[in-house]
Amino acid sequence: MSHLPTDYPARHDPRLIALDWGTSSARAYLLDALGTVLDDAPWGRGILEVTAQAITAQERRAAFEEEFERMCGRWLDEYPEAVALASGMVGSNQGWADVPYQHLPQDLTSLADALTEVPTRRGPVHIVPGLLSDGPLPQVMRGEETQILGVLELAVDPENLDARAERVVALPGTHTKWVRLRGSEVTDFLTVMTGEIYGLLTQHSILARLARRPETPDMEAFDRGVQTSLNADPDAGILSTLFLARTLPLTRRLAAEQVDDYISGLMIGAEVASCVRGWLPSSPDHSPGSDRPEVLLCGEPQLCGRYQRVLRTLDVDAAIVAGDVVTRGLRRIALSAGLLDRPGKGME
Amino acid sequence: MSHLPTDYPARHDPRLIALDWGTSSARAYLLDALGTVLDDAPWGRGILEVTAQAITAQERRAAFEEEFERMCGRWLDEYPEAVALASGMVGSNQGWADVPYQHLPQDLTSLADALTEVPTRRGPVHIVPGLLSDGPLPQVMRGEETQILGVLELAVDPENLDARAERVVALPGTHTKWVRLRGSEVTDFLTVMTGEIYGLLTQHSILARLARRPETPDMEAFDRGVQTSLNADPDAGILSTLFLARTLPLTRRLAAEQVDDYISGLMIGAEVASCVRGWLPSSPDHSPGSDRPEVLLCGEPQLCGRYQRVLRTLDVDAAIVAGDVVTRGLRRIALSAGLLDRPGKGME
Repeated sequence: MSHLPTDYPARHDPRLIALDWGTSSARAYLLDALGTVLDDAPWGRGILEVTAQAITAQERRAAFEEEFERMCGRWLDEYPEAVALASGMVGSNQGWADVPYQHLPQDLTSLADALTEVPTRRGPVHIVPGLLSDGPLPQVMRGEETQILGVLELAVDPENLDARAERVVALPGTHTKWVRLRGSEVTDFLTVMTGEIYGLLTQHSILARLARRPETPDMEAFDRGVQTSLNADPDAGILSTLFLARTLPLTRRLAAEQVDDYISGLMIGAEVASCVRGWLPSSPDHSPGSDRPEVLLCGEPQLCGRYQRVLRTLDVDAAIVAGDVVTRGLRRIALSAGLLDRPGKGME
Repeated sequence: MSHLPTDYPARHDPRLIALDWGTSSARAYLLDALGTVLDDAPWGRGILEVTAQAITAQERRAAFEEEFERMCGRWLDEYPEAVALASGMVGSNQGWADVPYQHLPQDLTSLADALTEVPTRRGPVHIVPGLLSDGPLPQVMRGEETQILGVLELAVDPENLDARAERVVALPGTHTKWVRLRGSEVTDFLTVMTGEIYGLLTQHSILARLARRPETPDMEAFDRGVQTSLNADPDAGILSTLFLARTLPLTRRLAAEQVDDYISGLMIGAEVASCVRGWLPSSPDHSPGSDRPEVLLCGEPQLCGRYQRVLRTLDVDAAIVAGDVVTRGLRRIALSAGLLDRPGKGME
């Protein structure tokens, strides 16, 4: 028998193992029923590495179970009734189980009704589905749906969440997501590859040759890039401004240490301007020129600060939401799914 | 004494060594005074490789002279009065000599007045200057000025060349140049990094994971990418359409063999649309809606065909200029500089 009280979820009783399991890494957290993080596991391997040696479907499942055991086994030894819930690419066709996408519009609070269970010798691991915006030009996400729910938990008064108020959440990163919500319902989203292209350009392109990595971010160079992007003809496009990151240092108008932040400004400037001009106003509730919804930003703080800076330049309100949004989102889904109501899965 | 007639430039008498010397490779050609290519040398090393082991300025000059000798020595043994003329990055501050840029507007037929001579034990090597469009957002070219002159030689009746007719030359490649001319005078140009970014995306990005290199180009996939680009809100931008090259194969709407050509269509579509909408009409001579000048395309034929396809979709006339434009441009400059008039440099 466990030493945990099994009658009621209480503070500091380990009840939920929350897994943020993506392409290149995995994080596992031990939570109580209120969402407090009690412990975390060392970084685990992402789905690419987990499946690198696994050929058959059976080998793949075994590899995931082994990695799950490596990250969470010690918790499950001590708290066998803890429930495991995972989000991210672990639910893709390259992952542990191919969890069908949920179609838009999708209320995030209803994701709890669409979990997929993967059996393990420790009991089931539940996996959150990703979202698909279907059509000739489809958009997909896996993992971000859970983060967005966490952002709403952190930033929006629960009493306002049911209202039909429109919100935009942006998650800057390698593949930045721009997500439009009505209350807690996702109505539309967009994926922008700015982060990945920035990495390729500053590491592998000709632009890297005249650049030196700065010791601290140079926000003056960033702002210069942003202004160049914003002043450019909207038709001109990022493809034609990028070469300035070569010609400016070549003509001694930009220092080698400023090149990377200048490119960052050119690219984030172009991305944000294109989203604000082309995507934000296309909501059925917002005609161009009417009030735009505030943008909630969540991600690496320094990067979010850059997005906020550009959004404010374009007169769009933007707030940065700091905090552990994945664990909050997973705890909310576990709660809605009734996974935290149980006295303990071993006693069902 | 040479066995060549020294009184008059004649067909098939070797008179000019034309060097196309860029960042990653070098080509050398032996021409007669009429521009006929009599011989070519094996590929030589580009300026990056030539200077890889050279630290001092003296070592650098020696390394270039050695490479020049390796490519052209056997010609100079036999025809010591042949004159050498080079264009490309060999004239940059990373090259053999830092040849000052010529400022816009620049008549290409006057480049002959701005050659820089580098002394060698074989006599001088002449280097063509590049062009600089100066200002807060500078543009540079080195080598393309010579190609453009070759394009004009090939495609425009000499009697029309002096007229003030406006033309646009586009040189698709790693860094595509769009160049506006009035007669033979360059008035404006733009550098677009489409080719380099395409290479990075299809080789190193997440988009490469769902792609398989096609055996033959899939123009249907290319056209689909182009249409997606052209139908997208001009504000939406390439950053937000690129992720479709992941979601379409993921949702089985695009075959793995079609991904690369689809990306090519997205990118060339975005580039050409942005140039046609944002850059072509900004000429002082052409108000938006008035007749647009024909675009002359020159470069790798298959790539030029893609640009032509998109330009025609946008109702812009485009012709592909095929032929050896570098040697034609260099021969024209050599002729204007009087380098081919001489009875032989050894007899001056």
